[in-house]
Amino acid sequence: MKIPEFGDVVAAHARIAPYVHRTPLYSSESINAITGGELFFKCENFQKVGAFKFRGACNAVFSLSEEEAARGVATHSSGNHAAALALAARMRGIPAYIVMPRTAPEIKKKAVAGYGGIITYCEPTLQAREETLAGVVAQTGAAIVHPYDNAWVIAGQGTAAKEMIEDAGSFDLILAPVGGGGLLSGTALSAKALSPGCRVIATEPAGADDAFRSFHAGKIFPSENPVTIADGLLTSLGQRNFAIIMDKVDDIVIVSEEKIIEAMRLVWERMKIIIEPSSAVPLGAILEGKAEVAGLKTGIILSGGNLDLGKLPF
Amino acid sequence: MKIPEFGDVVAAHARIAPYVHRTPLYSSESINAITGGELFFKCENFQKVGAFKFRGACNAVFSLSEEEAARGVATHSSGNHAAALALAARMRGIPAYIVMPRTAPEIKKKAVAGYGGIITYCEPTLQAREETLAGVVAQTGAAIVHPYDNAWVIAGQGTAAKEMIEDAGSFDLILAPVGGGGLLSGTALSAKALSPGCRVIATEPAGADDAFRSFHAGKIFPSENPVTIADGLLTSLGQRNFAIIMDKVDDIVIVSEEKIIEAMRLVWERMKIIIEPSSAVPLGAILEGKAEVAGLKTGIILSGGNLDLGKLPF
Repeated sequence: MKIPEFGDVVAAHARIAPYVHRTPLYSSESINAITGGELFFKCENFQKVGAFKFRGACNAVFSLSEEEAARGVATHSSGNHAAALALAARMRGIPAYIVMPRTAPEIKKKAVAGYGGIITYCEPTLQAREETLAGVVAQTGAAIVHPYDNAWVIAGQGTAAKEMIEDAGSFDLILAPVGGGGLLSGTALSAKALSPGCRVIATEPAGADDAFRSFHAGKIFPSENPVTIADGLLTSLGQRNFAIIMDKVDDIVIVSEEKIIEAMRLVWERMKIIIEPSSAVPLGAILEGKAEVAGLKTGIILSGGNLDLGKLPF
Repeated sequence: MKIPEFGDVVAAHARIAPYVHRTPLYSSESINAITGGELFFKCENFQKVGAFKFRGACNAVFSLSEEEAARGVATHSSGNHAAALALAARMRGIPAYIVMPRTAPEIKKKAVAGYGGIITYCEPTLQAREETLAGVVAQTGAAIVHPYDNAWVIAGQGTAAKEMIEDAGSFDLILAPVGGGGLLSGTALSAKALSPGCRVIATEPAGADDAFRSFHAGKIFPSENPVTIADGLLTSLGQRNFAIIMDKVDDIVIVSEEKIIEAMRLVWERMKIIIEPSSAVPLGAILEGKAEVAGLKTGIILSGGNLDLGKLPF
């Protein structure tokens, strides 16, 4: 099992730079005043496909040999990873086979199809997803790109924090949300290499607290029946992700739904940018007093901006 | 009656540069693909107080002599101009007296109070607003800063288009919304001076088409019972604004509510930024076929991002 290192993030960055947006870093005087911190928000909601996921997918697709690439890539995902993989594959001119539960939101199905992904629908269970994917791979020979438990993907996700530190200098603290751990593990690789002394704290919805429990127990607990508005953070930690997290992440804290929604609304109202609920979890942790930022130069990864505008929580 | 010229925009820019954000210019590949144009959006939703209005208010406040400034500034406004004037006045350390209809949205009352504006409430009629303002001015000696029919304000609003052209080079076409004409007249001054040959087209909600009718008749018709979601565009044209518009604007077109809402949603979904309905009118005009942009390098001023998130049209 290949555990990526910071050198892999550097290589990923060189590989994907022609394809990804170097997203801006925004600040808000009024949110600084509310929190007492000096906050910098890395706007991955402005990334292609509207989420950081494009970085990792792009690195995976462009890391394949010509021969591997020709057979295409495949994944099962109901979310941003599927759209990201479809677009990255289209950029390389190879097929992307996406297994999606038939219950996935219409907006996500449309996004994947719009990027040229070849969709196979399945029942909305993990078993059905894995079996359907195995069938697709048996037929096509496509390379499976796991949404987060994949060294290329982790290295790609780490490029967001790398850019953030390159653009704003070292940080006292970096906060990221955690679901499967792809963004978090990549962020930790970059933070610890480029900003020594920087603490990395992961933030997780209380209603999906498997990473919190896993971190504090030192072994992976699967995510079971998670209930949270932060629909990008429902998954269990991956093996590679967990290894990096135990090595490099300083703490994981949990956040209430109420504060996630409050944080999301605060960003929308004060910063005039659209972020999805998963992106609001770090600021929610600050508002809830779970992450102390007073006087600290703090970097926050806004993971994405994809959500159904017809179903807002406010 | 002083009609401002482009030289006044240049002077305004030098005066307000230390106080305003130089807002970014964004593009969207997918909106370009939908419209066939090469569109650049000037993000005044990211301006201080969330709207271009801060530019004009700031220029007015910092253009006053020390003696005038000491007595403060005053206006009647239920919208972004009130917040903008309050913040600009606070930056200069002088009082801002704001007359607001008691029916103004809570969010706007809070914004004005939050910026230190001294609010006097009145009945929601133009007569009550003007009489109340006259009373405040008689008592304080404050300088009235009209929201748009004011040479300093017009010159200040023109700095948004000036920055846009400086940042992206000359344009084939520039689109702006029109209400009272402050943004439009300032935009036209900059466009015609800095990008010769650029056409300037104003876009107006069909339910508030007084500027459209005025432009085509050559005389100002007042805005009567306007009905539109674009609540920043309800007012009648100002005298100074109309003079510039007749001289420098190439056309005014009207847009349906349906296309305004569709355009607003498109910007939210594809660009992940929050714009208020008034900002969506130019893109609405494009979607409705009222402004042809195919193959044209087109600049669009996104006027602001202030709206009640609890009352979205989708």
